[in-house]
Amino acid sequence: MLWALTEARAVLGHRTAGWVRTMASRSLLVAPPAALSKPLFIPSRLLLGPGPSNLTPRVMAAGGLPVLGHMHQEVYQIMDEIKQGIQYVFQTRNPLSLAISGSGHCALEAALFNLLEPGDSFLVGVSGIWGQRAQDIAERIGARVCPMVKAPGGHFTLQEVEEALAQHKPVLLFLAHGESSTGVLQPLDGYGELCHRHQCLLLVDSVASLGGAPIYMDRQDTCGVLRLAQPAWNGVGPAGEGSGPTARLDGIDVLYSGSQKVLNAPPGTSLISFSDKAKNKIYARKTKPVSFYLDIQWLANFWGCDDRPRTYHHTTPIISLYSLRESLAHLAEQGLENSWQQHREASEYLHTCLQGLGLQLFVKDQALRLPTITSVVVPMGYDWRDIVKYIMDHHHIEIAGGLGPSAGKVLRIGLLGGNATRENVDRVTRALREALQRCPRSKL
Amino acid sequence: MLWALTEARAVLGHRTAGWVRTMASRSLLVAPPAALSKPLFIPSRLLLGPGPSNLTPRVMAAGGLPVLGHMHQEVYQIMDEIKQGIQYVFQTRNPLSLAISGSGHCALEAALFNLLEPGDSFLVGVSGIWGQRAQDIAERIGARVCPMVKAPGGHFTLQEVEEALAQHKPVLLFLAHGESSTGVLQPLDGYGELCHRHQCLLLVDSVASLGGAPIYMDRQDTCGVLRLAQPAWNGVGPAGEGSGPTARLDGIDVLYSGSQKVLNAPPGTSLISFSDKAKNKIYARKTKPVSFYLDIQWLANFWGCDDRPRTYHHTTPIISLYSLRESLAHLAEQGLENSWQQHREASEYLHTCLQGLGLQLFVKDQALRLPTITSVVVPMGYDWRDIVKYIMDHHHIEIAGGLGPSAGKVLRIGLLGGNATRENVDRVTRALREALQRCPRSKL
Repeated sequence: MLWALTEARAVLGHRTAGWVRTMASRSLLVAPPAALSKPLFIPSRLLLGPGPSNLTPRVMAAGGLPVLGHMHQEVYQIMDEIKQGIQYVFQTRNPLSLAISGSGHCALEAALFNLLEPGDSFLVGVSGIWGQRAQDIAERIGARVCPMVKAPGGHFTLQEVEEALAQHKPVLLFLAHGESSTGVLQPLDGYGELCHRHQCLLLVDSVASLGGAPIYMDRQDTCGVLRLAQPAWNGVGPAGEGSGPTARLDGIDVLYSGSQKVLNAPPGTSLISFSDKAKNKIYARKTKPVSFYLDIQWLANFWGCDDRPRTYHHTTPIISLYSLRESLAHLAEQGLENSWQQHREASEYLHTCLQGLGLQLFVKDQALRLPTITSVVVPMGYDWRDIVKYIMDHHHIEIAGGLGPSAGKVLRIGLLGGNATRENVDRVTRALREALQRCPRSKL
Repeated sequence: MLWALTEARAVLGHRTAGWVRTMASRSLLVAPPAALSKPLFIPSRLLLGPGPSNLTPRVMAAGGLPVLGHMHQEVYQIMDEIKQGIQYVFQTRNPLSLAISGSGHCALEAALFNLLEPGDSFLVGVSGIWGQRAQDIAERIGARVCPMVKAPGGHFTLQEVEEALAQHKPVLLFLAHGESSTGVLQPLDGYGELCHRHQCLLLVDSVASLGGAPIYMDRQDTCGVLRLAQPAWNGVGPAGEGSGPTARLDGIDVLYSGSQKVLNAPPGTSLISFSDKAKNKIYARKTKPVSFYLDIQWLANFWGCDDRPRTYHHTTPIISLYSLRESLAHLAEQGLENSWQQHREASEYLHTCLQGLGLQLFVKDQALRLPTITSVVVPMGYDWRDIVKYIMDHHHIEIAGGLGPSAGKVLRIGLLGGNATRENVDRVTRALREALQRCPRSKL
């Protein structure tokens, strides 16, 4: 009402005063919102959901640094260091490695927008939310999508993939290495070689697994190692067995990940890398990708991945790039293998503690459990919402329910990066024990 | 070489040791990059280019806060406050107002992806880089693009737009309010009414103008005011003249802006708002937008702009949202009109100082000059690169050359948000005077 009055006065005042003075406090239709006059308050929480995870002190410090221009030499240097960091954490020598100015979803779109053209056949493993999303996005851009669908918690064996490759003759296969909605670790050994035999490229989502589970983009060959601990890595036995060293050297063509999981950086940037095979497909496109923002040929140039001088493309999220650089530096200092070991040990300890509480792990096969995000069957008689809320309200710890096809079925506990410690497992176990005692339980 | 050796040892070691110990320091193909072992160093600079601008202390402090989950109540509260802040700075009551998780380019894609369907006729004013980009993006998604092309520095009169509307019958018109590549402030009064008479929606880019030049999304009616200072606001006289109060109340249908200009926040988020007319067009689409990440129906739900419970869409850039909230709070505290006045006064002082140096402003008509970014003709005989480099090297001040169609023609000086002060004008004037004395000048 007050604003209606001042507005009326403004209309009367327009003709009698100079424009600056007239506008001052007289011409606005919408008043400054009262809520914005309150100070910003951010509580401290232990984030043991599927991400974001707590930031390391070094990453937090980077968030408070002064901004620079997106084309300053120091920022180009930081971008170069991020590229090297991506090459290290992805274990790849691909020159076409860069950060996307958006979250993991945005990286998935970048991959599909650039790899697929309308009418291209696209094979996608759907056993959780990420496959569903890949299917949705590919349909939007007119690809011919061939989903391999499994119940949540499933994974895709080499044999299943081979049959689908033979049937659908896709140009691209999508697999989520870490299916965060179900807690499944999809095996990858041998899948690149299999795809290449069928003239198909392999696209892998490692948002939830990077830094927590071994991944070697250029030479996906963990089976020689893992076989010792896990005799049957998946339904059809160790990949590449008997197919010789050449076959084993085949890797992943497009790999992407996010900043807010094991890297302990704020959400908002993502990492992506393209093999030469993938790059060649992109550079031979007949149509432009639908997005300019995510056009890899432009981004490759702006990120210094080609031989031409860098040309302005878009204003990158400078401060987020500082944080990403610091998070990659932290992981490089720790060492990838130490990080893998830390996550494996912490998650095994968590699994033991959860089973000690009488809880059931959602993924039965130990070899298929993500070492970063653990899914637990919602215990009989409880509403998962009560448990999550109890732990947040009384312990300031975040754990999560399911997502997409796993909603209502599971609780999810993330041990990501610096959060993957025995102390945190002990804290969340105590909180869970208390929640199970205090939360209402329906009579069965 | 060292890595080849350790790799060889790794292969031999696989069969004899437990997997964790085997992997530790033995199986990596790519070593941790040396560059990442150095500390991150960020120098302090005065950013007087076209953006990003220096952060306010309050925004910098927000960047160093702890992260929360993207679905925590406090983050929903921050999102609600951002929506209210957008409504204030855009001067709109549109419920469909939200932040995009990407830079201004991403917001432009969000607008075009959601407003246009394949085959839709799209009218775009091209007199600088932003019109070019809108044209490029719309072509990628199969719109029928009708560019109105002018030389850099031009703008579009009501009469020109009316002729084009009648000829092309577009569903959408794009205009850049602040064409940062040329320093032109495109008039907006009456354009909404004109578009609506032709069943066309009006999309406006205010990345470079928001907070610096008056904009009223819901009632673009500065002419009654501006007419006092500027008798001829554009080629065809004041908009809406004689067309009565109803016509004057027509506004802009889609307005977007960025975080890194007058708002003094880090780049990486952008603001967007949709009128009911625009919303209705989006919700009546026959096809899904090409992007899931930028699908407004999903985003509207996640941002609490519809009546349904919020559903997970993507992981938002939490820390950037803190910064954006603080920057909107700062502008709300200052008051939009005071900010407009500050930019007007600072830029007029800058223009006087530049003319005092013998420099020519690129935009001749004072009424068409952006009060945020000033374009100056590159003085005869100089290479613009020398001047920009001299000022950066000797004064740690960023100014910029041209961009896109204005490249090589102009120097650009930005006075954005807190940077719009007489002191900064004095600093950059001194630096420019020195540069003009010291930089090489070719004989004419």
